[in-house]
Parts: sequence; structure tokens; C-alpha cells
Amino acid sequence: MKLLSFETAAGASYGAAVAGGVVDLGRRLGTRYPSLRALLAGGAPALEAARAEQGVDHALDAVAFLPVVPDAKKIIGIGLNYRSHVAEESGRAPPPFPRVFGRWNDSVVGHGAALWRPKASEQFDYEGELALIIGKPGRHIAKDRAFDHIAGYACFTDGSLRDWQQHTTTSGKNFYRSGACGPYLVTADEVGDATKLTLVSRLNGKEVQHASTGDLIYDIPTLLAYVSAITRLEPGDIIATGTPEGVGSRRTPPLWMRAGDVFEVEITGLGTLRNPVVEEQEA
Amino acid sequence: MKLLSFETAAGASYGAAVAGGVVDLGRRLGTRYPSLRALLAGGAPALEAARAEQGVDHALDAVAFLPVVPDAKKIIGIGLNYRSHVAEESGRAPPPFPRVFGRWNDSVVGHGAALWRPKASEQFDYEGELALIIGKPGRHIAKDRAFDHIAGYACFTDGSLRDWQQHTTTSGKNFYRSGACGPYLVTADEVGDATKLTLVSRLNGKEVQHASTGDLIYDIPTLLAYVSAITRLEPGDIIATGTPEGVGSRRTPPLWMRAGDVFEVEITGLGTLRNPVVEEQEA
Repeated sequence: MKLLSFETAAGASYGAAVAGGVVDLGRRLGTRYPSLRALLAGGAPALEAARAEQGVDHALDAVAFLPVVPDAKKIIGIGLNYRSHVAEESGRAPPPFPRVFGRWNDSVVGHGAALWRPKASEQFDYEGELALIIGKPGRHIAKDRAFDHIAGYACFTDGSLRDWQQHTTTSGKNFYRSGACGPYLVTADEVGDATKLTLVSRLNGKEVQHASTGDLIYDIPTLLAYVSAITRLEPGDIIATGTPEGVGSRRTPPLWMRAGDVFEVEITGLGTLRNPVVEEQEA
Repeated sequence: MKLLSFETAAGASYGAAVAGGVVDLGRRLGTRYPSLRALLAGGAPALEAARAEQGVDHALDAVAFLPVVPDAKKIIGIGLNYRSHVAEESGRAPPPFPRVFGRWNDSVVGHGAALWRPKASEQFDYEGELALIIGKPGRHIAKDRAFDHIAGYACFTDGSLRDWQQHTTTSGKNFYRSGACGPYLVTADEVGDATKLTLVSRLNGKEVQHASTGDLIYDIPTLLAYVSAITRLEPGDIIATGTPEGVGSRRTPPLWMRAGDVFEVEITGLGTLRNPVVEEQEA
């Protein structure tokens, strides 16, 4: 299934994208599962109930995409997790442990929504990433059971303000509406081997990143084992697995995102997450 | 007012601590304001409605304290923000910008609840802190309006696993149930000048930290201005302002928290946040 969170004039909901449009699961199953996060928490029976719903409630172009899990309890980022990106970050050795940071939910928008280039910085850089979304909760997850805990995958834009990132990673990675996740949570059964996907990022249609998701330094089982040694992973939690080489800050001259740009991340089987860039608005 | 979130056999609620016990505001005002976070979002009229409620619904010892705002959208920590603590962290200069990190909600427990010393580390250190809780939302908050945005204050225990903190700040600061916030959100009108409070931390009754909240390197208005340049501060968001000298890791030998210990933070007018330490449980 291709699951999504979205908004219409009737408010926020979630659903499944099918041929011809969107099945509004929030409307149909909302008393049992009021959100996509709640659906994921419901496990296999909930997903089965979702699959059983037939009929299109909205045209796809009639919904505004929200971040895949708008109310995730944790959005966990991983820094410097592709050798090619570590290499372009001159003078840095591969990190001895996964480099974990958090993003707040309001730093992330849905597919199609505008990314905001903040007033505070011109160094607005892109990072295309594979994100995984937790289904089955767990602590101290064994590597050989890691994939049992993953509900599905999505494209992720880990927008970063490079000067503020020098203050702290958290500062540079949490600007309001500076990242994106979507369009869909594609369930794991449809994705197949998540270590053999091709990730391509484009700025204004021009390819700027191209990598295999198999090139992670800390692979998906290792990330789940590491993070779940710290905390309990919960349904809807998101782990953005890091970005490959090609970021704008390492180009000469640097390639920063500006108002009018369009950034997109495409991953095999997950679709294309596309977001225009605008100047920061009032909030 | 002294506001608190709590749990009874009837479930989670929130209320006000008064002479004789707790006014259950969740029960009385829950249709309008289902949580303390919602009450804060309601602004002055909501606080007025809360103040108007009379009569004790629970004895104070009949409720289990939850973290002051159990569903905060952001718990923002500030590292190295007292000169005395920077000095004891040998070889480190005062940071050129506030050192921001995030804590997930489930890394924090309420007053009286057990802190968990994780299996993954023996280096469980204490940090007593003053936390502020946002009332009025805002972005780009001017320093001279900063205090308008603060609903109140609480004690905060920023429990830190020092070896994991060497991996990344986020890793060491987010262990499940490793921190605490409470007992109360004391509203700003009752606290008076938040820069003239005395903070004392004790481990097993012995004083280990003692400082004035006036000794922050980056003061409260500067923190709000800095953080709100990055993100929109929302009602219920928490900023833990940093810890003074006296942490366990800088002692010879190091003083780590273990099962059976009791850590407490007392701040003028805010009461005492007290938590026992136990070994990690199943979760």
C-alpha cells in the first residue's frame, strides 16, 4: 500500500493512494484509527482493514499532502552515513558511531508544500534521504529482527542550514519547514529489498545526488539496534538514514536553495518527493 | 498557580495544586482544554478559568505526577550555559552560540517517578536545571518581549549518559526515562524574577550543585530569541536552560547515579523535583 497523510477542506485525514485517487481511511476507519500513526500502531489487523477498503474518495490532485506521519513522536536523523558524503566533507573520518540528531515535526512539510528558506541564513542546503517508518514498537531490537519493526519507507529531504549547523547539528537541522517527508509511506512488502534502491536528488530538474541505499555506512539493522539501545521505538517514528555525496555546500561555488527553486528526491518504488522553495513567511 | 499533569486510576489528567490537594482541571475543564498544553494554548482566559475552579478533587499523595507537559511538541536543551560548568569541562571555551539539543518526551518522567539507569551505560550523570515553559507562541521573539512568552517555570533533571554523549549529544541526552521535569509548572506571576532563583541539586541528600539562575551565559531572553529564529515556539514547549558546575563526571572518582540513589533539584519557589533511580526495566 501507498499510505499518505493529507488535508482537504474537511480537515486533516489519511488514506491510501490507489488507481484513480485516494481512499480516505481517516473517514472510513477514523473511530478505530484516528491517524496514520494510530493505524501503524494497530499492526497487521489495522493494515488488513485498510486494504479491505475499496473505492476512491478524493482525486489525488484534490488533496494537500501532509508529512507522512505529521505527529511522529520522534524524527531521528543520521549524519554522515554514506562514505561518499563523508569523503566530500573534507578531513572527516567515518564516524565511530551513528551520528544521531532529532528533527521536530514542524521542521518537516509534506510533498508539494513549500520549503521555507529562512531569514536567518542563505546557506539552505538540500539532502535527499531514504527514511524508514517504524511499525512494531521495540527496545533493544536485534539486528536480525530489525526489518520486522519497519512498516515502510518514504523519501526524505533533510534540509540543512549550514552556517547554523556549525553552531549545533540540532540548530541547523530544525528550521521551520526546512525539510520534507513523502509523498507516501510505501509499505515494506511493496518495497522489497530496501538496501538495493536507487536514490536520485534533483535541484530544478538537474541531478545533484545519485546513490544506492546499499551504500550506508551504518546499515538499517545497525541503526535500529543502536537507536533502540537508547530509546523505545514507537509506531510512526521516522529514521532518516543520511544523505550521499552531492550536497550544495561542497560545490564551488556553493549551491544554495533559493526562492523559486524546486528540490526533489526520487527513490525506486517510493515515488518522487517534490517541494518548491519560498522565502520564509509569517508564522 | 502551581499546575501539574498527573495520573490516577481514572487515567491521565492535569490540575492545580492548592492547599489540601489537587483541583482536577482535566475533569472540570477538559472539554475546552483537554491537557495542560491545551490550557496554556488558551492563554489568559484559560488560566483565568483554571483559577476560578475551587475545591479539592484529589489528595496530593493520591496522584502520580507526570512530566509537567507530557506531550510537549519540543523539549529543547541548552548545553554548557553556566560559566562554572564550562570551566569544569576542561579545555572548553564558552560556546560562541547557544548549544541546542532536543530531548524526546519519553526521555523525561514526572516528579517521584523512577529514572532508569540504562543497560547500555554506567555513566549516568545528573544535571539540575531551570526549565521554562512557553505560553504565548512566537517566532523571531524580541529579547525585550521574551518574558511575555513564558507561561511559567519548572525544575528539570537533564540526565545524561556521558559515554554515549561522546557519540552525539542527542544520543547521550535521550535515554528512555533518563530525565525529569516537575513537580509543577509554577506560573510566571508567582515566580517573580527568574534570574534571581537559587538552584540546588542533591544526590542522596548531599548537595552536589548550587548556583543562581542569574549565572546563565545565554540568558533567558537571548535563548528565546535564538531558538525562535530557528523555529516557532508553541505553548507547552520546554527550554531547559543548562546546568551549573558539580556534575558527577567531573569528580574524582566520577560520581555516577545507580539503582537506589535519589536525585533532586530544588529551585526557589518551584519546589523540589525528586526522583529515585532504578535499573532499566522492560519496555
